[in-house]
This record gives sequence, C-alpha cells and structure tokens, in this order.
Amino acid sequence: METKILLNESEMPRQWYNLAADLPTPMLPPLGPDGKPVSPDMLAPVFPMNLIEQEVSTDRWIDIPDEILGLLRRWRPSPLKRAVNLEKYLDTPAKIYFKDESVSPPGSHKPNTSVAQAWYNKQFGIERLTTETGAGQWGSALAFACKLVGLECKVFMVRISFDQKPFRKHMMSVWGANCVASPSTETNAGRTVLEKMPDTPGSLGIAISEAIEQAVTDKTGKTRYALGSVLNHVMLHQTIIGLEAKKQLEIAGVDKPDVVIGCAGGGSNFAGLSFPFVNDKIAGADIEVIAVEPESCPTLTRGPFAYDFGDTACTTPLMAMYTLGHAFVPPPIHAGGLRYHGMAPLVCQAVVEGLINPRAYHQLKCYESAITFASTEGMICAPETSHAVACAIDEALKAKEEGKEKVILFNYSGHGLMDLTGYDAYMSGKLSDYSLPQDKIEEFTAPLQDLPPAEQHKTGKW
Amino acid sequence: METKILLNESEMPRQWYNLAADLPTPMLPPLGPDGKPVSPDMLAPVFPMNLIEQEVSTDRWIDIPDEILGLLRRWRPSPLKRAVNLEKYLDTPAKIYFKDESVSPPGSHKPNTSVAQAWYNKQFGIERLTTETGAGQWGSALAFACKLVGLECKVFMVRISFDQKPFRKHMMSVWGANCVASPSTETNAGRTVLEKMPDTPGSLGIAISEAIEQAVTDKTGKTRYALGSVLNHVMLHQTIIGLEAKKQLEIAGVDKPDVVIGCAGGGSNFAGLSFPFVNDKIAGADIEVIAVEPESCPTLTRGPFAYDFGDTACTTPLMAMYTLGHAFVPPPIHAGGLRYHGMAPLVCQAVVEGLINPRAYHQLKCYESAITFASTEGMICAPETSHAVACAIDEALKAKEEGKEKVILFNYSGHGLMDLTGYDAYMSGKLSDYSLPQDKIEEFTAPLQDLPPAEQHKTGKW
Repeated sequence: METKILLNESEMPRQWYNLAADLPTPMLPPLGPDGKPVSPDMLAPVFPMNLIEQEVSTDRWIDIPDEILGLLRRWRPSPLKRAVNLEKYLDTPAKIYFKDESVSPPGSHKPNTSVAQAWYNKQFGIERLTTETGAGQWGSALAFACKLVGLECKVFMVRISFDQKPFRKHMMSVWGANCVASPSTETNAGRTVLEKMPDTPGSLGIAISEAIEQAVTDKTGKTRYALGSVLNHVMLHQTIIGLEAKKQLEIAGVDKPDVVIGCAGGGSNFAGLSFPFVNDKIAGADIEVIAVEPESCPTLTRGPFAYDFGDTACTTPLMAMYTLGHAFVPPPIHAGGLRYHGMAPLVCQAVVEGLINPRAYHQLKCYESAITFASTEGMICAPETSHAVACAIDEALKAKEEGKEKVILFNYSGHGLMDLTGYDAYMSGKLSDYSLPQDKIEEFTAPLQDLPPAEQHKTGKW
Repeated sequence: METKILLNESEMPRQWYNLAADLPTPMLPPLGPDGKPVSPDMLAPVFPMNLIEQEVSTDRWIDIPDEILGLLRRWRPSPLKRAVNLEKYLDTPAKIYFKDESVSPPGSHKPNTSVAQAWYNKQFGIERLTTETGAGQWGSALAFACKLVGLECKVFMVRISFDQKPFRKHMMSVWGANCVASPSTETNAGRTVLEKMPDTPGSLGIAISEAIEQAVTDKTGKTRYALGSVLNHVMLHQTIIGLEAKKQLEIAGVDKPDVVIGCAGGGSNFAGLSFPFVNDKIAGADIEVIAVEPESCPTLTRGPFAYDFGDTACTTPLMAMYTLGHAFVPPPIHAGGLRYHGMAPLVCQAVVEGLINPRAYHQLKCYESAITFASTEGMICAPETSHAVACAIDEALKAKEEGKEKVILFNYSGHGLMDLTGYDAYMSGKLSDYSLPQDKIEEFTAPLQDLPPAEQHKTGKW
C-alpha cells in the first residue's frame, strides 16, 4: 500500500471552486464608511480589477490560467499522505490522511494565492506590490511570487518580528523583496506612530496601513496591495488544495472523508482544503467539517457575527464576519498566523449556515500533538498546523472509542522549521494555556453595536 | 511535459549498490596504530557487527531490509525535478535535472543513512547511539532516526554552534535527542579540554572524541557510535539516491546523463547520487562525474592521496584518502558540511582511478548561483548544495557555447532554510573568497610522511 498519493502535473485542477456560488444564502456585501455596499471601482486603487472581479464573482468555477499552472507546478500537485505510523501509535481504526502543503519553497500553503495574485497584477500592468507581514510567512510567499513573475515587492514587517525573527526577512531578501520594519519613516501612517511612540514594537494593523498607503499614493498608478487571507479571491485560489485532495482520495479508494479539518486564522488554508467538500455537503454528503482556532483567539467559537473592519486602523471596508472586535489584541502565542480578530467572510457565512463546525484548542495540547506527530510521522509542523493535528488525533481517538472506520482528512498547512523557538518554549515548560475571559470579548465587541448590523438568515439545515 | 518525475513507493530500489565490488583496484585497508590492517572485531566496540560487515563487504548488491524501506518511505522516493525555468533563464540547450533530497523531514540526504544505521543498531540489540555534530545537520538526522526506531540518542554539538545556532538543537529536542555542548563535562576528553581552555568554542574533533568515548566506555555494551559520512557503509546507504535517479531518468526518456554533479565534503551525498553512474562508466558509458568542493577546503583537488586519521584527535584508524592533514582547520565558510580535511576512501579511490573529476569553487560564485536558482526555480538551497548548483550552471553554459544538448544531473542535497544567515552575509557583502595558500597545505600534510604510505595503482583508463 502506498502511503503517499501523488498526482502528475497534468492532473492539476484547471479551475478554482467558488463557494459563494453554492451558499444557500447570499453573502452580505462589504460596506463603505457610509454604510452602503462597496462598489468594485472603489477597490480599484487597492487591487487590480481582474482580482476585484474574482472577489465579487458568484461563478461556481473560475479557470486557472495556464501561466499560473506553470508557476504552481514548481511544487504542485502537493502530496496527499496517509499517517499510517500515527494511526498505529493511536491504535485507531480511523484512516488519517493529510494534504502536505509544506512542500512549497516558502514552506506553506500561502504561495497558492501569492503566485496567482502576482500574476493577475502583472497582467493588469502593475509593477510593484506592497503588503504587510507579521512573523513573515505571507511576506516571504509574496516575495517568492513577485520574483517568479517579475514584480517589485515591498513588505512592511512588524518591527518586533523584524528584530527578533530575522530568518524570514533573509528569505524575502533572497527572493529580492525590499523588507522594512514597521512602523517605518516611509509613510505618513508610520511617521505618525513613530512620533508618538518611537520605541513601539509595531503591529499588524500599523503595517497594513503602511502597505495600503504606499499602494494608493503611488502617483504612477503602478503599485497595488496584496492580502494573504480573509478575502474571497484568496479563498478561491486556495481551493486547489481540496480539489487535488478529492482526486487523491479517489485514487486511494476513498469515496468521501468523514471528517475534514483545518486550522483557521484568517481562514485561507482551512477554506482551501474544505470548500470543495463543503460543496459535497451542500449536495447531501455526510461530512463533518471542522475549523480549529486557538482558545486565546476564539473568533468563530465565541465572537459575534457582525460587521467589522478587517484591520485595527479601520481603513478597510466593513465585512460581515465572526469577530472579536478590530481593536482586539490576542496574547502572543507562537501560532502567529492564527492571531487574527476576524475571519474570512466566506468561512463565516458557511459557519452561519451550519456547514462548518468551529472548535477551539489550547496551545499546550496542540504542541503535545505536534510532538506526537513528529515522533511518529517524523515531520515537524508549524504551530498553526498543530491545531489541525490535535483535532485529527482527537477524532481518531473518538473513532477508536466508537469502533468506527472513519476517514479523517486534515490540512498540513506548513512546516515548523522556522518556528522552532516555539517548540523550545513548550519543551522548556515556558508556555501556558490561556482562555480569553468573557468580559474581554464583551469589551472588545461592544463598539461593534455602533456599526451597521449583520442580519443574516441562518438556514442551519445541515 | 512533467517537470517532476515521481516514483511510487513500490518502485523504491530493494538493494543498495556497493562500488567497492567494481573498482578496478581493490581498496587499501584501514590501518591500526601499529600500521597493520584493522580487523572487523577491532571496530566492534564502536559499531555493531552488522554494519561492520557492510563496511568491509565487497558484494555488489546488498538487500535493503523491508523495515528500512518502511522508514525511508516517510519521504522517499524523492522527486527528480527538471529545472526548466533555470534552463530558460540560461538559454541553454542542456537539460538540467536535480534529485531533490531536501524533502526529508530533517531537510537533507543525511536520513538515508541515519535510519539505516539506527535500524541495524536496534537489530543488534543496541539501545543508545552517540554522535557528534557541527552545525547540526547530521545530529538532527540521527535524532530523527533514533526516534523512529526507538533508540536513545546523544549528540555532542560543537559549542559555538550550540550557542549561536540554536534551531537545529531545538529540532533534535523535538525528536527526543539529548544534545549537549562539546566540550562537555560528561567525558574525560571533554573535561581535559575544559580544564585547559574553559572558554573554547569547541571543534568537531573534540566532539568526535567525546561521542566515541561515551560509546566505548558504556559498561552495559548497549551503546554504539554513528558517523554521518566518510565510511563505506554510509556511502552504500546513500546509493538509493542514484538508483532512484536512474529509474526516473528512464521515465523521462533519458538514456544516460552526460554530466553527474554533487558537492563533496565527507563525500556521502556525492557518492549517493554518483556511484550507480560510476558503475555505468566502468561498464563503458560516457559520463563525466564531477565532485565539487570549496576552494577553502580543496581536499580532492589539492591534497595528497595518503594514509591519514579521520579525526583531528587521531583516534580513528588510518584511512587511505585525499587529505589536507588531520590537523587542518578550514576557514569558517557557511558551507559547514564541506569543511572536512579528508574524504570518503571510496570516493578517493574512484578519483585515483580517474572515474571522478574533482573541481573546486569559490563561495561567492556558489552563493550567486544559489540566488539564480532561487530566482528561477524558487527553491533556496543549502550552502553546501550551492556548490553543485554552481557547477551545473557552468556545465549548462558550456553546453550552450558548444551548442550541445547535454543532460546534466545534480544532487540537491538539502534546503537552506536553516542557513539563511549565510545568505544574509553574502547579500550584505560580508563574505569574501579565500584560496588556501600552497604553503599551508604543505605545512598540514607534512606530518603524513611519518605515517604508512598509501601506494595505490592508478589505472587512469577512463
């Protein structure tokens, strides 16, 4: 029996899947500062029109241009692997499959959208992309993509990460990107913050403001901004993960998975794996789809569904989503990619519909699971990915209790080779669990009542 | 056209190839302190007898036990990739293939032998392995292997790396190994050094002495030592690389490669890829086989072929090899894995026979080539691997000059994700080239004249 199910490049999906086409209730529109729906042309200074068209599209299938397939095949199709050694260790009747997105050169699923975004920008005549990055995962994925298609890349990296985690910064330099610490002196947003707080460690909110400012103020009109998660077109590009996985499960003789699992921060790796299966669920398939988030940032499990800003600086349109409030600052857990106050609107709407079950995990359990995985399968996963691993182990143990031959599928969204300090902190006993107090959630979400309400019909029929 | 040529697990080679069976002139034996050939039982306190048997074997093919195939398939077969984007960039008629050994969980070819060694030790009743490591590549590969087969693992890591490069140390901890800084207070060798030089940065030579001492002084007899390169059985285990590559080239419709390239420090990744092709060359095939080493440590290109110790502390048997002298300390280039004074005797004998052409490269050219590779193929290679990349680019440009449709194959021995400080140093202009002065070589090799001479018949018929 093969434990790795591989596809040829010629078997790569030729279309992305758009869940917006199949959701029982239409998505609530993003709103502008006036409370009215944002029109596509209002986004034009920020994104190129070809991506804005994808953002608002309700077409079910969107063709993947051959040139993007040519970029993706540097590492795709990614392997689907069966965790036979973990199964044996757990003594479970469950079959555990995982989609290995760590094989991309930057080490995660992020390049699935960064190469697509870079290519569409290039097509539109754009010459330069700006973005923000926290620990550097998205910044390095965009740097990689810009180098491959021939765009300049400017990354505003949160200062504390810039100083403390130099490796991703070096990675971006290898791929030719210009990475600066944020707040920087290059933008009004940055200078304003620096005047007030010259020693600030920075924040993702400030970095977003800087990146957007540099994009929209470029008088040549040749600069745009790129975002690594949350938006509809990002979810779309990531669906290649689940579409490949479906083909691979078929090759493995699996009719359908019983449980599909992904960790969820902004939602993109989770959506990428799960949306094609959510489609099957809408069509009647019995599949449990689980989004796993940290207890310290429990957006889907404990936040209200409301209109909120995507960034702390309140510069983005309002989006209807589960949110802990745009001013919420999660504690500094090592799974930096899961520390987002909101969640992709497409994922949120599917949760509203009852198509996706969110679940929150503590970080100690996640690290423990990651070490179990490394000890059996041999692979060291990213701290974000450990949330999916922990849930997969729970589901496999549940299958053992129930004596059921379940098929569990999870997304191995990235490797942890750049995150070993988190493992060291865990193994040295320096980490602890943290549950967000209810009064904190109420404090940070109270201001949302002054924004337009997100009234959404919940069908809840699944 | 597929750019990645993949094999199923069922297509993995079932036997390793032993070049010792086919070398025109038999290997010179290792010698003891008395100048007489070392008998297998003299090595018994250091290595288990099943590995010693492989060390001295002249059988052409040695079966790979099913259990070892079961360990290897966690990441093997590794992909053979065609660097179509690099070819296009160079505008060369050459076809450039590379075997991607970076896909193993520790990130290099090293686990091909570490899992085999761990398994044979376990079979022999051993409970604990000791080893040394410089920057941590081999230490992490052995930690990984010991975890998978259920052995304790003790790694003596050169103190300066232990302090300055903590990530590989964390990696070893994830896989349950006990990693200590060398010199340590745990051995006589370590304590002796610490008494004289309490602030020493340590060296690979001291670490080897500590690891061997702990293995041979364990009164239970359940501890052995493991070495990551140089020895015959290590070369043997690595030949799975070249054997897979041959099958993959066949699938790609390539009759034979014209040039086979690997970087060479101790020789194992180079031997692993090239020996099966050296076998074809002995049988008459027209293949150029190139071992690339750094100009700063030019063992094969400028060292004499002589009997020398494998370690600086003179504790190993004498081996017939090209060497810069066991007391030679190469400058601190970033390609730490290529900083060895000697070279695997099997590789050396093949060089003596004229089967392999050694070549030396400067580090600036290697980093420049690595960045060209990252800019086209997208992958960031290890500093060691960059030597093979530089040579492959040279050969592709030569093919362009000659207008020849050559097939070039090189070993992508590991990724550079843990070595980004080297790239940063290069990009910041902090690195320079260094050619070893001839008088230094003469100084360090002069003492070899007091050791038994390595008189070897050079057939030179290729």
